[in-house]
Amino acid sequence: MKNTQATIRDIAIKLNISISTVSRALRGAPDVNPETKKAVLEMAERLHYEPNRVAQSLRIKRTNTLGIIVPEIALHFFSSAISGMQEEASHHGYSIMICQSLESYETEKQNVHMLAANRVDGLFISMSSETKDYAHIQQLLNKNIPVVLFDRVTDSLQVAKVVVDDHDGAFKAVEHLIKTGCRRIAYIGGPLTFYISNQRKRGYLDALKQYNIAPDEELIVHCDELHHEPVERVKRLLQLPPDKRPDALFCLNDPIALLVLQMLKEQSIRVPDDISVVGFTNEPVSGFIEPSLTTVSQPSHEIGKKAIELFIQQNQDQDNFIPATEVMKTTLVVRNSTRKI
Amino acid sequence: MKNTQATIRDIAIKLNISISTVSRALRGAPDVNPETKKAVLEMAERLHYEPNRVAQSLRIKRTNTLGIIVPEIALHFFSSAISGMQEEASHHGYSIMICQSLESYETEKQNVHMLAANRVDGLFISMSSETKDYAHIQQLLNKNIPVVLFDRVTDSLQVAKVVVDDHDGAFKAVEHLIKTGCRRIAYIGGPLTFYISNQRKRGYLDALKQYNIAPDEELIVHCDELHHEPVERVKRLLQLPPDKRPDALFCLNDPIALLVLQMLKEQSIRVPDDISVVGFTNEPVSGFIEPSLTTVSQPSHEIGKKAIELFIQQNQDQDNFIPATEVMKTTLVVRNSTRKI
Repeated sequence: MKNTQATIRDIAIKLNISISTVSRALRGAPDVNPETKKAVLEMAERLHYEPNRVAQSLRIKRTNTLGIIVPEIALHFFSSAISGMQEEASHHGYSIMICQSLESYETEKQNVHMLAANRVDGLFISMSSETKDYAHIQQLLNKNIPVVLFDRVTDSLQVAKVVVDDHDGAFKAVEHLIKTGCRRIAYIGGPLTFYISNQRKRGYLDALKQYNIAPDEELIVHCDELHHEPVERVKRLLQLPPDKRPDALFCLNDPIALLVLQMLKEQSIRVPDDISVVGFTNEPVSGFIEPSLTTVSQPSHEIGKKAIELFIQQNQDQDNFIPATEVMKTTLVVRNSTRKI
Repeated sequence: MKNTQATIRDIAIKLNISISTVSRALRGAPDVNPETKKAVLEMAERLHYEPNRVAQSLRIKRTNTLGIIVPEIALHFFSSAISGMQEEASHHGYSIMICQSLESYETEKQNVHMLAANRVDGLFISMSSETKDYAHIQQLLNKNIPVVLFDRVTDSLQVAKVVVDDHDGAFKAVEHLIKTGCRRIAYIGGPLTFYISNQRKRGYLDALKQYNIAPDEELIVHCDELHHEPVERVKRLLQLPPDKRPDALFCLNDPIALLVLQMLKEQSIRVPDDISVVGFTNEPVSGFIEPSLTTVSQPSHEIGKKAIELFIQQNQDQDNFIPATEVMKTTLVVRNSTRKI
């Protein structure tokens, strides 16, 4: 397909002057005759000339574009974090481009390569649950492309990070379950290598410890896949003998908790009378379902804004920048899927 | 910030051969000594050399990247359409980049310029509700950049389009209201220049006509702003004398219907006993709220896939391509915000 975007050359030909004069006029160089300059600017407008940012970026190495990679934009947590990012980025004159990995490590790698090839000025990544190898991100760092990780992060990379206090959020959720009389609390978590899942498990275990409840390995579930496996694993827990069965489920996130609630409803198991359920994220749907879901709310919009702030700081003072991890606080939102205290 | 991405030049220096030999080796040209070629490929891998897609795109004018602009990714309709696009695009070897206009005409223009500057191979746009001028899109067409419009389209541009049958969807929704005994049905629409709003209004009017109900101008509401104005306008309708008051609200989309439902609940107005409410889109929340929302479901995922298909067709046979408008069918989903027949 022929690309007919107007170039500096087109302007030069139309005005019968040299390409270098056009270039200098467009740059606002002082050594151009004012009338020539006026003619160049008018012709540029008439031809809808746009500075070829691709060619330009080869010279000035700045695109004023930021790239964002998230697992899935349909999850409210991510679309809300992105809205915070876009708000803050536009204050600083940056536009943003978004890609989704759809929880696939391969797609995440492709996204990283595409955005790097388009010379974004910075990359903001929340990693897929499949990602166990960070070479694709390390390569960006080796090329001096600033990277900020958010929410789904790893200890293996020395970069700025924005996370929520997953440990504290999980602790508060499990403490609430204990205070409402639950004793056999199961943790329905993600893959063993999944950072946020492990942080939340630590909070779960510490809450049990604080209230002198011995953890039961049988009640700690790690799912490699997050769409079908959690429900199947919960079904198996419910088939345990009555004294082994859980009386509460603390789920890695709201999407899992919602799938579990649906299954419990289908099996006519009453929530919270027979079993309590707690999520993590506070997706909008969670306040609407019956029973509404008790969950840990994350400040998603603020996480997005903070990620951009860290990038701006890094960009302003590259020499003294030390990669920091910002930890944002969560709030427990008590609704009807847990018993009253 | 210094960009340290490896270049062809770095490979040439390391191997002490010419840049042109490296370039030919990487291209797989036949006139390169097999051992030299092997050495070049190994060095390219060692240095994590990536073909500079920015420089490359200046030559081959293809980036294998598609750009998508939507009003807001947080709306399920758009995230679902994007998931359909990403699925279909990846089948054809394209990656996608997403931008959101946040219903701002200015941001939409910026997004168009940014994606065009990054030389995407095609652009998929669902326009902001503010957009009344299409010059920014016409300019893309003048530059031979293929554009596909979806959902939020305009008759003013000669491009491929994917829309739902808004007229038919609205007709079915209003017919359902009439069949359940409603007679004073209000239409809560968008700006007067908003294409889909006008299509849905036509369907609304035709349904009234078919059942011999005279339309009442007082019950036809056009909102320029879609977050606060609709609720305020409905409040005013409810203050009309009893014989003028609406007994049903057909809303432009689910987000508006959900805000209206919330307000009615706050004012203890019973749905559907006092007033029936119907939406358009079928957002996931709509099935969860109390009462659940009767709405018109759009095949969002299929709309996304179809948009990519139209682009692929256009790309394969540019000369014979005639911009077509694909019209997708909707389904009425009857829930509890309307009375039983």
